Amino acid sequence: MTKTDPGRFFEDYRLGQVIRHAVPRTVAEGERALYHALYPARHALYSSDEFATNCGLEGSPMDDLLAFHVVFGKTVPDVSLNAVANLGYAQGRWLAPVWPGDTLRSESQVIGLKQNSNGTSGVVWVRTQGLNQMDEPVLDYVRWVMVRKRDADAPAPETVVPDLAPVVAPGDLVIPEGLDFSDYDFDLAGEPHRWGDYQIGEKIDHVDGVTIEEAEHMLATRLWQNTAKVHFDATNRDDGRRLIYGGHVISMARALSFNGLANAQMIVALNAGAHANPCFAGDTVRAWSEVLDKADTDAPGVGAIRLRLVATKGDSAALALKDNEGRYLPEVLLDLDCWALMPE
Amino acid sequence: MTKTDPGRFFEDYRLGQVIRHAVPRTVAEGERALYHALYPARHALYSSDEFATNCGLEGSPMDDLLAFHVVFGKTVPDVSLNAVANLGYAQGRWLAPVWPGDTLRSESQVIGLKQNSNGTSGVVWVRTQGLNQMDEPVLDYVRWVMVRKRDADAPAPETVVPDLAPVVAPGDLVIPEGLDFSDYDFDLAGEPHRWGDYQIGEKIDHVDGVTIEEAEHMLATRLWQNTAKVHFDATNRDDGRRLIYGGHVISMARALSFNGLANAQMIVALNAGAHANPCFAGDTVRAWSEVLDKADTDAPGVGAIRLRLVATKGDSAALALKDNEGRYLPEVLLDLDCWALMPE
Amino acid sequence: MTKTDPGRFFEDYRLGQVIRHAVPRTVAEGERALYHALYPARHALYSSDEFATNCGLEGSPMDDLLAFHVVFGKTVPDVSLNAVANLGYAQGRWLAPVWPGDTLRSESQVIGLKQNSNGTSGVVWVRTQGLNQMDEPVLDYVRWVMVRKRDADAPAPETVVPDLAPVVAPGDLVIPEGLDFSDYDFDLAGEPHRWGDYQIGEKIDHVDGVTIEEAEHMLATRLWQNTAKVHFDATNRDDGRRLIYGGHVISMARALSFNGLANAQMIVALNAGAHANPCFAGDTVRAWSEVLDKADTDAPGVGAIRLRLVATKGDSAALALKDNEGRYLPEVLLDLDCWALMPE
Repeated sequence: MTKTDPGRFFEDYRLGQVIRHAVPRTVAEGERALYHALYPARHALYSSDEFATNCGLEGSPMDDLLAFHVVFGKTVPDVSLNAVANLGYAQGRWLAPVWPGDTLRSESQVIGLKQNSNGTSGVVWVRTQGLNQMDEPVLDYVRWVMVRKRDADAPAPETVVPDLAPVVAPGDLVIPEGLDFSDYDFDLAGEPHRWGDYQIGEKIDHVDGVTIEEAEHMLATRLWQNTAKVHFDATNRDDGRRLIYGGHVISMARALSFNGLANAQMIVALNAGAHANPCFAGDTVRAWSEVLDKADTDAPGVGAIRLRLVATKGDSAALALKDNEGRYLPEVLLDLDCWALMPE
Repeated sequence: MTKTDPGRFFEDYRLGQVIRHAVPRTVAEGERALYHALYPARHALYSSDEFATNCGLEGSPMDDLLAFHVVFGKTVPDVSLNAVANLGYAQGRWLAPVWPGDTLRSESQVIGLKQNSNGTSGVVWVRTQGLNQMDEPVLDYVRWVMVRKRDADAPAPETVVPDLAPVVAPGDLVIPEGLDFSDYDFDLAGEPHRWGDYQIGEKIDHVDGVTIEEAEHMLATRLWQNTAKVHFDATNRDDGRRLIYGGHVISMARALSFNGLANAQMIVALNAGAHANPCFAGDTVRAWSEVLDKADTDAPGVGAIRLRLVATKGDSAALALKDNEGRYLPEVLLDLDCWALMPE
Repeated sequence: MTKTDPGRFFEDYRLGQVIRHAVPRTVAEGERALYHALYPARHALYSSDEFATNCGLEGSPMDDLLAFHVVFGKTVPDVSLNAVANLGYAQGRWLAPVWPGDTLRSESQVIGLKQNSNGTSGVVWVRTQGLNQMDEPVLDYVRWVMVRKRDADAPAPETVVPDLAPVVAPGDLVIPEGLDFSDYDFDLAGEPHRWGDYQIGEKIDHVDGVTIEEAEHMLATRLWQNTAKVHFDATNRDDGRRLIYGGHVISMARALSFNGLANAQMIVALNAGAHANPCFAGDTVRAWSEVLDKADTDAPGVGAIRLRLVATKGDSAALALKDNEGRYLPEVLLDLDCWALMPE
């Protein structure tokens, strides 16, 4: 009997099944420092305890995307080890800040199954929850992946496609307890632009570019305990390159978006996301954003802004996303739709 | 008078000599996070304070190998700066967990000397102890290295070869105070295999591979304050590559062994070890293990398992170690013999 | 209206203007660990809480240069984003240790302006102060840069060139409160050489070399939240290389200087500094030092030593700095003049 884990295949998933993912993780000042070394992260709320305290929090929380990566990484051995493609995200919400010293674990429930017509693979929808050491949920999102079948002759499950809202409704956004932007310090945050300064439809070119090295994305992906072989094993490809974890591109783009969106401090919802094209070492990642929507919140001085965050490799001067036939342009790496919180 | 340290030569060692190694080091959450970024480390006891507490510990200790590297690194300027070869390890035991915030220092005693027949070098055996800020030993091991002589005409010392047991006896293993695997959570640990599921002689292919970059092994080796020039200075070799610190390969192999040995939680003894072939950036490291022995312990639910941990570069499908003449196969990087603790 | 920051141009600076730089940063154990991974840093006072306590401090402070990089990094978007050249440093003093958990921010005052004769650029002098969360200054230095003009026709400001002392007077050095080297442990520090053992004019070849990789200097430069594009974007140059942040070379040279200056524990003043030639990945950095001066201090057992710290790429066997015409030799990367504290 082999003791190594071959990962789950399509026929191993059952509707309603709950998977307790392995390897809980305590995150602290070390992970925070590494996040700042791996990405050009400058949002003040995640950089300074003082700034965060002045915004009503008990200190600087761990970066929202750091929490996402840790929660996501745990699901990889159970959900995407045999995945052909990571198809999408929906209904993602950050439910509570993660503080240094918190321990995170993940659970996923299978909420949809659909065998592909060719019979060799199928789509699995899971709702994943990140939980802290008090078993409080800190993050909740739906993800769907295409997974290979072990045995093409295994019977197809009943098709269940979950009904997923395209956008998290503003009223469903969870504002961290105590958050208050009334005394927000725009000088220290780095830009003067308030929530009211952004127009729906406005596009922002974040200008800066970062060329990625193999060592960097592997350090990051390991840090999130994401074990997918394609990110680490150069013998998987003839050219010796390793496919970069899509989440690395998310964090890179988010950090680059500081330049123009320095005050989009907290990400509170992930409405949708597509990894449009693969990213490899040597690519120079740039980013641009589009304001998709705005909404008020009940928290003092806090507005919500819905942003499309796009990562590209190479030139993004046109700020274009898709071609005439609706296909992502070859230079587009990421198309992420999220809600962030901003001082009004 | 030059103020830089040329390192000790063979004739500088005296039997019984005690060397207090320089540069004590406080290790904390930052070193832990870096360990997770540098290696695909997933053993739950070192990842989660909650998991460790549930196993009777006061929190998650620093990884056993992190403690080893820090203790070992301090010995390099005094023991192996002029070493021709790192010949072996014996009788290594972890004596107490290292906690975040602990400060480690190292001391070595010369326990053996044997000049080589050619008169230009000799073998030095040292017993090295790692001590914490309370001067409590946390680690103890014997290591022997071949060291150049400064002056070939220096007289040979009396030959003393220490009598070293090939294996730490199970009764001599030190189980961390309070360790209790009675309520061990196999879901969170990542695999269902218990101590009783492993058979002596069983081999486990850990399947995954990691291709190593120059930046990664240098970050690691610096973190352990290991100053050996060969790891950092590309001008040492015509091909511009740097020899990778053998301990980097140990940690990589140990982390890869999670896949099949997720429950081999703590390393408590290092019986023997050989760096069979050099490792360089670009090599893809894989690992396999062989169960060499098993023993019960007095701690509740805790069994000991003796493992041969082998790291290879390239294909290790055959899980073979040596050729017909007893020489290590060219793809074998590491042959490590250790005791680990596992839930029964 | 564009929301991204184009940076300040020469005509945007006014004499006496105070700039509160963005993004305060809490530094802690994570940044310390990364500093040890990025540089071969071994000075015991920054490595061990125990060693620092034995020297009268409340614990091990963050490395002086780490504090410098964090303070400096914040000034980049406001001072040197459009800089043509980083011309010099003067009158730098460390005023208080930075402890893990402290939050740093930076302020700069414009103290000098001089338009260049070609009318397309000018020199800006700023005095930058790093402040902690109690608004206590921790670092203070003058830096001057050549900055492009946005509009060549903009009128030249009145020329004001500040009067800068070439060296911080020994009496102006700030010794950290409580510092006491009376019980200094030379074994643990790594070398026996005391303040009295160093002669003015003495040169020390630090021997070791470190070959730099792209991933490493980018991790470092991001960690200091230094956003200068040239360090990250390979598309800026035809050869795909990124210019290495000068501060990375400073820290590398300082760390290498351990070998021969292990007891030059704390840097307390930066008298002058020049980045003589650019550094790129693949360069092997070496260092040598020259003792420029010595002075006593009021703190028990603490002497001050003024050092020229030189970083080179390639061979530095000659320990030479400039050619016959006073130009830096092509292999010289850095010429730094500083005061450090040493046990007497």
